[in-house]
Amino acid sequence: MAQKKYVYSFGDGKAEGKASMRELLGGKGAGLHEMTRIGAPVPPGFTITTDVCTYFYDHRRQYPKGLEGDVAAALARVEKILGRKFGDGENPLLVSVRSGARESMPGMMDTVLNLGLNDRTVEGLATRTGNPRFAYDSYRRFVQMYGDVVLGLKPVEKTERDPFEVILERKKEARHARFDTDLTANDLKELVGEFKAEIKKRLGKDFPDNPKEQLWGAIGAVFGSWNNDRAIAYRKHYRIPDAWGTAVNVQAMVFGNMGDNCATGVAFTRDPATGDKRFYGEFLVNAQGEDVVAGIRTPRPIAELKEVMAKPYAELDRIRKVLESHYKDMQDIEFTIEDSKLWMLQTRNGKRTGFAAVRIAVDMVDEKIIGKEQALMRIEPDQLNQLLRPIFDPDDKQRAARDKRVLAKGLPAGPGAATGKVVFHAEDAEEWAKRGERVILCRVETSPDDIRGMINAQAILTARGGMTSHAALVARQMGKVCVVGCEALNIDYGRREMRVADVILKEGDWISVDGSTGEVMRGEVKTIDSEVLQVILTHSLDPKSSRVYQQYAKLIKWADDVRKIGVRTNTDQPDQAKVAMAFGTEGIGLCRTEHMFFGGERIRAVQEMILAENLEGRRQALAKLLPMQKEDFKGILDIMGNLPVTIRTLDPPLHEFLPKTEEDVVELAETMGVSVERLKEKVEALHEFNPMLGHRGCRLGISFPEITEMQVRAIFDAACELRKEGKNPFPEVMIPLVATEKELKLQRDITEKAAAESMKRYGVKVRHMIGTMIELPRACLMAGEIAREAEFFSFGTNDLTQTGLGLSRDDAGKFLPGYVEKGIYPEDPFVSIDEEGVGELMRIGIERGRKTRKDLEIGICGEHGGDPRSVEFCHRVGLDYVSCAAFRVPIAKLAAAQAALKR
Amino acid sequence: MAQKKYVYSFGDGKAEGKASMRELLGGKGAGLHEMTRIGAPVPPGFTITTDVCTYFYDHRRQYPKGLEGDVAAALARVEKILGRKFGDGENPLLVSVRSGARESMPGMMDTVLNLGLNDRTVEGLATRTGNPRFAYDSYRRFVQMYGDVVLGLKPVEKTERDPFEVILERKKEARHARFDTDLTANDLKELVGEFKAEIKKRLGKDFPDNPKEQLWGAIGAVFGSWNNDRAIAYRKHYRIPDAWGTAVNVQAMVFGNMGDNCATGVAFTRDPATGDKRFYGEFLVNAQGEDVVAGIRTPRPIAELKEVMAKPYAELDRIRKVLESHYKDMQDIEFTIEDSKLWMLQTRNGKRTGFAAVRIAVDMVDEKIIGKEQALMRIEPDQLNQLLRPIFDPDDKQRAARDKRVLAKGLPAGPGAATGKVVFHAEDAEEWAKRGERVILCRVETSPDDIRGMINAQAILTARGGMTSHAALVARQMGKVCVVGCEALNIDYGRREMRVADVILKEGDWISVDGSTGEVMRGEVKTIDSEVLQVILTHSLDPKSSRVYQQYAKLIKWADDVRKIGVRTNTDQPDQAKVAMAFGTEGIGLCRTEHMFFGGERIRAVQEMILAENLEGRRQALAKLLPMQKEDFKGILDIMGNLPVTIRTLDPPLHEFLPKTEEDVVELAETMGVSVERLKEKVEALHEFNPMLGHRGCRLGISFPEITEMQVRAIFDAACELRKEGKNPFPEVMIPLVATEKELKLQRDITEKAAAESMKRYGVKVRHMIGTMIELPRACLMAGEIAREAEFFSFGTNDLTQTGLGLSRDDAGKFLPGYVEKGIYPEDPFVSIDEEGVGELMRIGIERGRKTRKDLEIGICGEHGGDPRSVEFCHRVGLDYVSCAAFRVPIAKLAAAQAALKR
Repeated sequence: MAQKKYVYSFGDGKAEGKASMRELLGGKGAGLHEMTRIGAPVPPGFTITTDVCTYFYDHRRQYPKGLEGDVAAALARVEKILGRKFGDGENPLLVSVRSGARESMPGMMDTVLNLGLNDRTVEGLATRTGNPRFAYDSYRRFVQMYGDVVLGLKPVEKTERDPFEVILERKKEARHARFDTDLTANDLKELVGEFKAEIKKRLGKDFPDNPKEQLWGAIGAVFGSWNNDRAIAYRKHYRIPDAWGTAVNVQAMVFGNMGDNCATGVAFTRDPATGDKRFYGEFLVNAQGEDVVAGIRTPRPIAELKEVMAKPYAELDRIRKVLESHYKDMQDIEFTIEDSKLWMLQTRNGKRTGFAAVRIAVDMVDEKIIGKEQALMRIEPDQLNQLLRPIFDPDDKQRAARDKRVLAKGLPAGPGAATGKVVFHAEDAEEWAKRGERVILCRVETSPDDIRGMINAQAILTARGGMTSHAALVARQMGKVCVVGCEALNIDYGRREMRVADVILKEGDWISVDGSTGEVMRGEVKTIDSEVLQVILTHSLDPKSSRVYQQYAKLIKWADDVRKIGVRTNTDQPDQAKVAMAFGTEGIGLCRTEHMFFGGERIRAVQEMILAENLEGRRQALAKLLPMQKEDFKGILDIMGNLPVTIRTLDPPLHEFLPKTEEDVVELAETMGVSVERLKEKVEALHEFNPMLGHRGCRLGISFPEITEMQVRAIFDAACELRKEGKNPFPEVMIPLVATEKELKLQRDITEKAAAESMKRYGVKVRHMIGTMIELPRACLMAGEIAREAEFFSFGTNDLTQTGLGLSRDDAGKFLPGYVEKGIYPEDPFVSIDEEGVGELMRIGIERGRKTRKDLEIGICGEHGGDPRSVEFCHRVGLDYVSCAAFRVPIAKLAAAQAALKR
Repeated sequence: MAQKKYVYSFGDGKAEGKASMRELLGGKGAGLHEMTRIGAPVPPGFTITTDVCTYFYDHRRQYPKGLEGDVAAALARVEKILGRKFGDGENPLLVSVRSGARESMPGMMDTVLNLGLNDRTVEGLATRTGNPRFAYDSYRRFVQMYGDVVLGLKPVEKTERDPFEVILERKKEARHARFDTDLTANDLKELVGEFKAEIKKRLGKDFPDNPKEQLWGAIGAVFGSWNNDRAIAYRKHYRIPDAWGTAVNVQAMVFGNMGDNCATGVAFTRDPATGDKRFYGEFLVNAQGEDVVAGIRTPRPIAELKEVMAKPYAELDRIRKVLESHYKDMQDIEFTIEDSKLWMLQTRNGKRTGFAAVRIAVDMVDEKIIGKEQALMRIEPDQLNQLLRPIFDPDDKQRAARDKRVLAKGLPAGPGAATGKVVFHAEDAEEWAKRGERVILCRVETSPDDIRGMINAQAILTARGGMTSHAALVARQMGKVCVVGCEALNIDYGRREMRVADVILKEGDWISVDGSTGEVMRGEVKTIDSEVLQVILTHSLDPKSSRVYQQYAKLIKWADDVRKIGVRTNTDQPDQAKVAMAFGTEGIGLCRTEHMFFGGERIRAVQEMILAENLEGRRQALAKLLPMQKEDFKGILDIMGNLPVTIRTLDPPLHEFLPKTEEDVVELAETMGVSVERLKEKVEALHEFNPMLGHRGCRLGISFPEITEMQVRAIFDAACELRKEGKNPFPEVMIPLVATEKELKLQRDITEKAAAESMKRYGVKVRHMIGTMIELPRACLMAGEIAREAEFFSFGTNDLTQTGLGLSRDDAGKFLPGYVEKGIYPEDPFVSIDEEGVGELMRIGIERGRKTRKDLEIGICGEHGGDPRSVEFCHRVGLDYVSCAAFRVPIAKLAAAQAALKR
């Protein structure tokens, strides 16, 4: 094999890489190379590829042969461009070393800045810049950062303060300095020495003075940070494969903190929260880039840059337009101004909220920047959720304002309405959420350490930081409600409370946060339907007056035009069926009949049936259920018009209908007029060790054909009545838990007979199908035989996962999270279809089923039907439709469209 | 398609069929054709093929076109041979109409004799035979039989007596007749009229006088009887496919009941109970064949026939020799002597006990009649069980004799020792056995209606009937202990008791029955090891003095020479391992380690581990278990010498080791020094809804790697110690419930590390393998990936059946029997591998596993490994070995040999 190219250089208008090499160079690297190519001012540097990361982890953290030479050559190229030398005492080259994975993982991995400084080069820097204080401040920052990131000097206990910060504070006290900036060059020089001494004391290591050693230390640390806890958690949440790895970017330093003609900033080519088409960003004068994102200082809006530094601003405005039209997508850019010269440090497709994703995609189609198909690919299907989430009830918000419950207003960084209990620590957020509490995480600012807490919170509220701060960035990406820079908040972590003017909010107090306006309100504020739902479901909003609805509707229309597989809904509730119809469902893929068996009179009749001593008794009880079931079916069939409604015959084991507690048993015995002993005997007799694998599904209908008979009669009586009213219902009778052809044949015979009787009685014909749920491994293997008796299959992937993997969903909670963390399963197999295992069973089932019956209709009614990844899989294996919860219909439609476009 | 031939004629030395046409002509038909061909005296007739039966059931009980003409032609041929005419008033032809399936199903289906009689032809018969009484007796019998079998006049209630018998009794009373034979021709003529009137009254049908109508009625009844309840139950027990169908044989009647120069009998060419080489059978003078089998009269031994009718006996003796050497197997023959002329009515391979099967097979090899391979095919593997079953302790039998507890002696029809409670009705036997009682079914005689009761009884004891009676025949076939013709018993069904001299035995009293001697003893008699076990296991019997052992050993040797797959044993008990070694096992295929976790000190340590709050606590508890587990493993590894011992790491969910009842919880809490609440919390926390699919198998070892570590260390410490003693143990570590490659990899890493540490510590190497149990559908599908980490696979077909079919073995009892009865599964899938479903998963697993690793060792350790059908399947799909319970090793070996020979 030819030697792989491991290092790609860029700078001075030329670059070895380009935008399409994301996989190899990472997102950041590809962006730097591409910007260089199109003439943006980018400090020169080079990228070490993700292949090296893969090699690194496959070979016990060794590097491939030849890498060292390649890095040296690339470094020499940078030296040549800038006319500086790495480690040179007079005109030293300083570099940054940054991670950069294929997908952005903001703040999750490590970075080292100002690398190349030592007691000799710092003097060169001081001389060159004529600014010894700046030089020693950079040196101090470098030693601190390197000591933490590369050498690993961190607080031992969570309660301990950062050892470097402790020394810094001490120094400031000694010098009676209020801010860092009050320290002199000499103070900073002393600090460098004290930092190094602390490192030596605590870790027993000398701080490396050799810049080359520094460089390789930093490269190793960045590759190593791919597998730190934060990064792993982040990848898990965003389903980023562990195998991708990160690239490392080594780039000449530019400084935004050399004086007042310097600045640093982050900006978006459009508003990442709302999608508005306006240049949107923030900057800080005389600061390093990290200061903006860290949220320690609240930065100034980008528009003000124009006033402060007109020329660099004009250049930035020009470049942002070039970048957006070059990338044809909203860009998230980072820049630094050094001595009034603009340098671009990053461009990437900007993360955005669901609202912004829809708006930007649709706007860009209108602006003819992209086509409809590209627009469809631009939105994560799950992001549509945000458009459907409740918003605050304007009346109740007004009441809150009247009652003076609006406490403060921050920057609206993540739109939406959230209500929850105040917590101040990420760990608390996680813990409280696990026990079912809704919490709002309130922080002065957030850091990458807070990631798990943010995942578990309803909303994030910070006192400091701007719209591009870490909190805002992560929240937008997660679609979380978020308000940042709410300076009125005075948070006291120690007391677990926050003060807003004279109001004190303690941990556990309720607040409401409006991420669309930035308002923070005391107590719970009522919510109402989202704009989209107000238009399509309650018709309480005029479609013309809602831009959100209009863009949503456009998008769904495009998705409908493109997708190849149908989207149905799982429901047995008429009101849910109405919601699904409003979302444009194409039928019901799973109507469970057992939910109809609960509730007052019905459950009594069901219990009577179970307790009956013989067929006669069972028939009498079933006769009571018949008219009720018929009305249920009539309701749903009527709502669904002429769309197919797949109705599953009784599935759960009968013991689910009997009481569990002593008390309930006594009560039922009284009501039913049987002895408590007799009832207990029956409960005992029906008890099962593994109900999942027990007497349920078609096994019930085979033991008690009269139950199937009653249900089929109810379905067809209902359908016939609708038919007589001139309607055209379309029931599909689905037999559950079939493992053999014979089972289905037996149930089919009963179904055909009962259906024919109903139709004869009413004198009408009803369009219908008879089929089965494929939810056992054996059914997949025997699909060829089973298809002889089935006009349709519907994969019950919940049970197929349970049986195929031997994994009880009710019990797996104890170890499944650990399994996903260990990479045993890439995803929770109950969330996304286990494609290797369950997916293989499905492939076998589809192939064998269609071989017997070419026109076999095949769908999925497991909960996976609403999971975008699983929808894509269903498309790939050739299903006719997916079926999911009503509220996931738009999501499934978009996922289906994307699946079709990906082919 | 060419018209099929539906009717095959035989008679007068010529036959259209032959022995090899069993499938088409049934066993009885093929025998009649073959005997005709080889010159035996067979009354002429014809066979309607099993194809017609299949057609009959596929076409709503219609016959194929052309059948009527073919039957008429065949009947004409018989008329021509005999010079008689069917329905002729002067010289009428009478025929029998009998069933005959591919496999004999004695007494299960219907038969009609003397067909062709009516008021006209009976006169012809009377004239021709010069015996009006005989003619009218035949007519009476015919009307009675036809009325029952074809027209269906049977008792309505079980308690009702046979309506024909009631009329017969009334007639006898009226005539003061004691026996049937006391009735005159005229009485019998009157009876015919009364029978017909009863039929008309009860069924509203006229008795058909037209012989052709009679014939078609009888043919339809025989085909119809293929699906009567008895026949279905019998087929189920003997695994005869429903699809085979029966043939119908129509044959000219010969009469054994025309006078004292007439007789009828049943005989075997060798003793079907013991296998002794002697002509063995029974006869009755002046009787119809049915009388012998029905067991109503106890017949005379065949040797006496020589004295009564020398010439026919000589002819019979000659023919039986011809038949045995022609068929090269022990024959079961039926004959009738009419007017001193011998007629052969049937020959078939005789059913025999396990003892007889082994003896006949081995003897015939010694006699050079058959080869070893044929001998191996002659024995049902399960029959070997009989040679291993305990026999009565001679000392305790002597004591019983001294105490006068030997009550009676009958004919030893089914060898073996049985002890149980007396019951008198088949239904009781079934019911008592179902609740776990051991019962002995005591009857005056048995009939096909008793079949279910016989299946459920430990032994069958009858007061009447000979060695060829129904009871003897069925018991031999089932391998049941059986004593017949024990005339000293006086059974009173009404009082549910029996008298033997002055002793009264009531329902529920204990008796012991020796089927090898015919003795019936009161109370329980102790049993000891079988002869085979006395030789090979306890060495208390000299092999030379046991013919049974010697023949058994020869057979097993032949099986070992022929079979291709290995036979291992499932055991974790040293004593069972010794038994398995005595049976010639080739290793242990499954040593469960959890059984070693129960008992005194161990269970406490296990509980301590479960209750430990942290890793440290768990390690402490495990350290206590380590030396005990090591000793267990050392014991078993030592016994097994250098044979492989597959040891499975901990499999069951941890809650199995915690107490279930309140009382036990309190006790344990006290012992462990924890609060009852804490313990209850733990029990609650570990509770699972579907433990089968829960936190078990390798999932435990992944959550708690220290458990696997301890177990592996115990295994290798034990093996190393043996190695140091100069032995050569061969452990195979088996990881259970693997679904993914990663799981196995994680457990394999732990195993390799712990094994290496042990070996290093002891300074020796131990031969070993690491592999996995394949017991989840996903594991079969992913076998290619899993095989990367596995040196061997062992199919856990118990769990693979549970998950593949979605069927909990603990819960399926409620509906699975019904499933087998309805033909949904051909067999209980927990007894014989479900070849279509589970078998397909295995085929996939084998193919994919071997594709990755050519030399992958693959076995089975589910309980199916001891089921002969499943062994054959395992051979077919190419497994390396099966593993089964110690006592099933010889059975599995024979089954494996047969599987190899069938290829």
